[in-house]
Amino acid sequence: MRILSGVRPTGKPHVGNYIGALKNWKKLQEEGNECFYFVADWHALTTAYSETDELKTFTREVMRSFLACGLNPEKSILFVQSAIKEHSELALLFSMIVPISWLERVPTYKEMRQQLSDKDLSNAGFLLYPVLQAADILMYLAEGVPVGEDQTYHVELTREIARRFNYIYGETFPEPKTLLSIIPKLPGTDGRKMSKSYGNTIPLENTLSNLEKSILPMMTDPARKRRTDPGNPEKCPVWDYHKAFEINDEESQWVIEGCTKAKIGCIDCKKLLIKNMKKELEPIWIGYAKIDSDPHYVDDIMEEGNKRARFVAQNTMNLVREKMHLLF
Amino acid sequence: MRILSGVRPTGKPHVGNYIGALKNWKKLQEEGNECFYFVADWHALTTAYSETDELKTFTREVMRSFLACGLNPEKSILFVQSAIKEHSELALLFSMIVPISWLERVPTYKEMRQQLSDKDLSNAGFLLYPVLQAADILMYLAEGVPVGEDQTYHVELTREIARRFNYIYGETFPEPKTLLSIIPKLPGTDGRKMSKSYGNTIPLENTLSNLEKSILPMMTDPARKRRTDPGNPEKCPVWDYHKAFEINDEESQWVIEGCTKAKIGCIDCKKLLIKNMKKELEPIWIGYAKIDSDPHYVDDIMEEGNKRARFVAQNTMNLVREKMHLLF
Repeated sequence: MRILSGVRPTGKPHVGNYIGALKNWKKLQEEGNECFYFVADWHALTTAYSETDELKTFTREVMRSFLACGLNPEKSILFVQSAIKEHSELALLFSMIVPISWLERVPTYKEMRQQLSDKDLSNAGFLLYPVLQAADILMYLAEGVPVGEDQTYHVELTREIARRFNYIYGETFPEPKTLLSIIPKLPGTDGRKMSKSYGNTIPLENTLSNLEKSILPMMTDPARKRRTDPGNPEKCPVWDYHKAFEINDEESQWVIEGCTKAKIGCIDCKKLLIKNMKKELEPIWIGYAKIDSDPHYVDDIMEEGNKRARFVAQNTMNLVREKMHLLF
Repeated sequence: MRILSGVRPTGKPHVGNYIGALKNWKKLQEEGNECFYFVADWHALTTAYSETDELKTFTREVMRSFLACGLNPEKSILFVQSAIKEHSELALLFSMIVPISWLERVPTYKEMRQQLSDKDLSNAGFLLYPVLQAADILMYLAEGVPVGEDQTYHVELTREIARRFNYIYGETFPEPKTLLSIIPKLPGTDGRKMSKSYGNTIPLENTLSNLEKSILPMMTDPARKRRTDPGNPEKCPVWDYHKAFEINDEESQWVIEGCTKAKIGCIDCKKLLIKNMKKELEPIWIGYAKIDSDPHYVDDIMEEGNKRARFVAQNTMNLVREKMHLLF
């Protein structure tokens, strides 16, 4: 199956990005799918057009994290959106056939404008971003798009755009399927949503001692004030981490019983988490270090991936231009 | 002065296009300005996305007419919008900083949606087209944009976009001036607005005998039913043509007196018009024939013009990407 997914370079990748996307991407790659994974730097502008000082740095960082997490440039095509100018051309052409009303009724549109009241989301780019997203997906004739629940409408809209294009100009695009991944929710270390602006993230690139510094003071079930108070894992962010970092049945039993019956302290529980996180994250930390041994590696990989993506994109655009009777 | 203007390839060019744009463009060229003139094929999609069967043909036809009218590829840069992919990239980037409200308040937006009720103008591309237009203009750092009165707001909006970009990312774009050309209004042969869909146009590429067939049965002042009825030039479409085709003072005197005092018939008046139109249009007809003597000429000119335009566009985009901190 041909798969496509992207991530916005809005900061240095944290463990939430890994659990929410990269881990699943690697799994899809290992299952033998033909995967296109990209850094969505133009998308980052839709919600933060005025904060671009670190855009270059973050774009490279995200690509570096792709590689550190085991996305393999020999198996998957890893590229940067802004390097494939065809995305902007296809988005422009799609904008000609997409009614404004389709965009205004995207559930996240009004939601985000209300919730992110500290951001200026009145720009046309934010309204149009599902069109750019449809261009990203259909450019590579993707058959499957791994998304979280909040993004399912976008893939639905992409299918609608594909159908409308096919209807007006003739059969061109397949209708991509939503690959809904039940992503474990990973809160920040203070229990709120993990977000750079709250300062509650855990960097993906890390050391054991820094990981300990993040996890040990982590917020737990507020009801468990003293060591002797019983706790409730369902109300504890540490438990969310345990589930995300694949706690086994035995350990799970130990934590639930230890917590609810006040047999173990939160520090005991966190030490187990640190052990499990280290097990999963250490290969990634080593990955980062390996990558850095060749200062040109990330740029070389990007260039190669961009070239391969561009080849596919150019083929699609040739077809699109022919269908639409454009001279160029 | 660096000048930019474009025309949509919505049909074979007619004398209205010549009087309304091309004639003035040639004048600006001859005055020694550095002119960029382009076929706005992407813009044609904003109002007619589903009628693209002849888009290629019309794009070539418009370029052919540029040349026939004396736009000189050695003096001016003649290109096709869709060949310069950078326009879509810059439009996308501008969309990130342009508030939707700026677009909704464009006077032609609501006006055209009401008036062109036979067209589907609910698409995002139609709302966004002033953004694409701003990209067309600012891409070439144009200082002057020749427009008719209905387009002045678009150039104003372009200045606003330039200012906003400069404010957010640092000084990049000059603010282009509106070169308001008082364009003689050229109605169709039936007195209504000249429009392909009314079948009342006069092709720019023509023969004398076909021109006569268009002009002789032309509608005149409806009050002048008989040869002996006096007429009023101000109510006669033929008079609009006379003014557009540079009637001299003596002829003008003859027409006004002849018409208002019923001394001449409408046919006499039209014969004078045909003489004056032939004088101005014949070099263009010859131009068309010359161009056709080399079947590759139009394509060669386009390719060369596109290359020159692309060179300027790439320089602008390098600057834009640097200012916005985009990696590519």
